[in-house]
Amino acid sequence: MLVSSMPRSIRYDEKKNELVLLDQTKLPLEEVYLSLSEISQIKEAIKNLRVRGAPAIGIAAAWGLSLVLKNYSHLTNNEFEQFFEESYHELAQARPTAVNLTWALNRIKKVFDDKSFLSPFPRALACLQEAKAIEEEDTLACTKIGQYGLELLGDGMNLLTHCNAGHLATSAYGTATAPMYMGHKKGYKFKVYCDETRPLLQGARLTAFELQKAGIEATVICDNMAASLMQKGRVDAILVGCDRVAQNGDTANKIGTLNLAVLASHYKVPFYICAPLSTIDMTTPTGDEINIEERDPLEVTDFWYAHRMAPVSIDIYNPAFDVTDHNLITAFITERGIIYPPFTTQFLKLLKE
Amino acid sequence: MLVSSMPRSIRYDEKKNELVLLDQTKLPLEEVYLSLSEISQIKEAIKNLRVRGAPAIGIAAAWGLSLVLKNYSHLTNNEFEQFFEESYHELAQARPTAVNLTWALNRIKKVFDDKSFLSPFPRALACLQEAKAIEEEDTLACTKIGQYGLELLGDGMNLLTHCNAGHLATSAYGTATAPMYMGHKKGYKFKVYCDETRPLLQGARLTAFELQKAGIEATVICDNMAASLMQKGRVDAILVGCDRVAQNGDTANKIGTLNLAVLASHYKVPFYICAPLSTIDMTTPTGDEINIEERDPLEVTDFWYAHRMAPVSIDIYNPAFDVTDHNLITAFITERGIIYPPFTTQFLKLLKE
Repeated sequence: MLVSSMPRSIRYDEKKNELVLLDQTKLPLEEVYLSLSEISQIKEAIKNLRVRGAPAIGIAAAWGLSLVLKNYSHLTNNEFEQFFEESYHELAQARPTAVNLTWALNRIKKVFDDKSFLSPFPRALACLQEAKAIEEEDTLACTKIGQYGLELLGDGMNLLTHCNAGHLATSAYGTATAPMYMGHKKGYKFKVYCDETRPLLQGARLTAFELQKAGIEATVICDNMAASLMQKGRVDAILVGCDRVAQNGDTANKIGTLNLAVLASHYKVPFYICAPLSTIDMTTPTGDEINIEERDPLEVTDFWYAHRMAPVSIDIYNPAFDVTDHNLITAFITERGIIYPPFTTQFLKLLKE
Repeated sequence: MLVSSMPRSIRYDEKKNELVLLDQTKLPLEEVYLSLSEISQIKEAIKNLRVRGAPAIGIAAAWGLSLVLKNYSHLTNNEFEQFFEESYHELAQARPTAVNLTWALNRIKKVFDDKSFLSPFPRALACLQEAKAIEEEDTLACTKIGQYGLELLGDGMNLLTHCNAGHLATSAYGTATAPMYMGHKKGYKFKVYCDETRPLLQGARLTAFELQKAGIEATVICDNMAASLMQKGRVDAILVGCDRVAQNGDTANKIGTLNLAVLASHYKVPFYICAPLSTIDMTTPTGDEINIEERDPLEVTDFWYAHRMAPVSIDIYNPAFDVTDHNLITAFITERGIIYPPFTTQFLKLLKE
């Protein structure tokens, strides 16, 4: 397990039957924990990014829905089923684009439907058990990604990561950060450069925060400084997460990932995508078919600033993700091992196992 | 000449004998003009980046020193010479690393020394004439860079620039922006992507502001979005300025320039450095000998923000410049023409003319 100084983004308090969330919008200035027990509170927390990162959103929704069911298990069977439907749909709308949210809610729904012969209270307990399973599976996947990833690294290496594919985005360890934490436990000394990751600064605010907490040497850079570091030979490997991987290996991830991949190719730095198998989407042939969300221009011009930082009514281009060509990726690190090119055949083989 | 809507960063008001500076720290929120007539005021404006950009700093210092001399021309010859020495040294200390500052002050000093047979008032007028010459030579160089640069561009092109090598950094037209303004006058429709340029946001605050004022279509992007644009074929050429060019063509410019140059090479986008010949430093053999200034970490973590955006006591890497390999540069655009590789022999030829 992780050292005790490591904050958990999500924790289910069984005694109080509450979801305890670290409010990530307050980081790194304040470490505030929210105790939530109503659907409206949990929806608000997901919608307003108090909990973020695809795996963490799924886990929070699964716990949230299940614990609320327990609180309402005094209802009649009919009332209980109606309450489930309303709660499920309210949570599912919190963030329409996050795949893990509906995926996790559907796992709870399946258990709820399967246990329809039970009375409300044991039915709610079965849902809570499924939420626990979702969390535990995520922790196991991250652990395995960490172990496989560590095989590619060595003591004293300088690493670089982008955005937050970290402990805070998962139940534990993260994806891109998992090999760092595994190495740190073994006594490896890594130096990790954290791209600040404009516009929402997840690297400066979240990744730097959690690595510092864990006692790993972290340095924040502006995104445009990565080339300068690689030119000087100061980066030995790059590890990032992913949001969707196409069948050919093209990978959608936080805007700026492609940037790093081109630099890594030019400077011959290994470029690794840390990918739970659930993010590999065999129904999408290539990156060209991945739809890239464009977000609010205010994130670029105003969001964190004391006052606006660009002229009024200027055009802003603010894509949330970019797609990295599969031929710029050295390997995928998954919970079932490391995948080298050609990716498609390797994906098929691993997903069949 | 530029359209009248175009703000001038520096203007000498002959009637009032004042230096009128556009306060660039207030942009783009407010367009505030400062009327300065004392050495201490002019020093403060340079030191605190109210006027910035190497050519603009030189021009402001030359006018500033000369107009103050005129105000103090009632002094005796001896007093006047002592006043000159004090004023010269005070201004020279405003920004120790800006080469153009001492270069411009030394041109004024040479005239002051040459005219020692004159009484204070005509001596001050001779200095003012030299300041005017410095400004006019800069305008001519920028005009020529614009004309030569435009030969490389075509109507309807999508351009990308970094930081502010613009009108605001010079007496007129800028360097990297000069071909854009020249094309715009001819009726060319350009679309210009402005890297916001972390950490000091000169692209979002200054370049976007001046292009918008001139009526050129400008779009602000975060620095990490440039790869995504180039991948989609949405950038036809990149134009940037420079701070120092080594003998072999290696070029120091605002941090993030190298980043763009690697991307441009990968995506086969022409990458042009707009360089007045004064920035080519034949005494520096390669980029390895260029000393890169590291700046205050607070620029990255705190400077513009409503509150701190990175953990307390985290390491920050904040180089102000990077060095772009000469083999990533398509051509230099100078006031004496376009220079293609091999750069060294071309530099020598051009500088001899």
